[in-house]
Amino acid sequence: MKFKASVKVMLKTAVLDPQGATLERALKSLGYQNIDFVRVGKLVELVLEEESEQAALKAVNAWADQLLANPNMETFSVKLEPLL
Amino acid sequence: MKFKASVKVMLKTAVLDPQGATLERALKSLGYQNIDFVRVGKLVELVLEEESEQAALKAVNAWADQLLANPNMETFSVKLEPLL
Repeated sequence: MKFKASVKVMLKTAVLDPQGATLERALKSLGYQNIDFVRVGKLVELVLEEESEQAALKAVNAWADQLLANPNMETFSVKLEPLL
Repeated sequence: MKFKASVKVMLKTAVLDPQGATLERALKSLGYQNIDFVRVGKLVELVLEEESEQAALKAVNAWADQLLANPNMETFSVKLEPLL
């Protein structure tokens, strides 16, 4: 069975996000004052084949933990949807 | 009214994604052969205040178009949820 997985990797809230801060400044200097908490993260999308949704979720979580996210500074969340 | 907006910016399918290709190779060299179409994109999250959901959506779409995405190589999609 094929699944499409999305892994969202964001810096932890306590970690300074320079890219987000720069973007926030840029938006404010363009005249948008009504914004806050701008954070920039990574999104990894992939297609994988596994027997079950559970197995797929387990695999993607393992990849995110081992390869995609830095556990010291980042948190990740995994979303999975079956492909037809 | 406050909203939390997420802007997903991905390279267009026709554009080569070296980061995704590298990640795919890395995962395959770790022994996961059952993967395909690995793409890496950006995710921007922010909180904004607008009168209505429509106005917020319009503002975030304008930012994404002007600042966040490169329209030649990237596509974006915006998701909005009201904050309590």
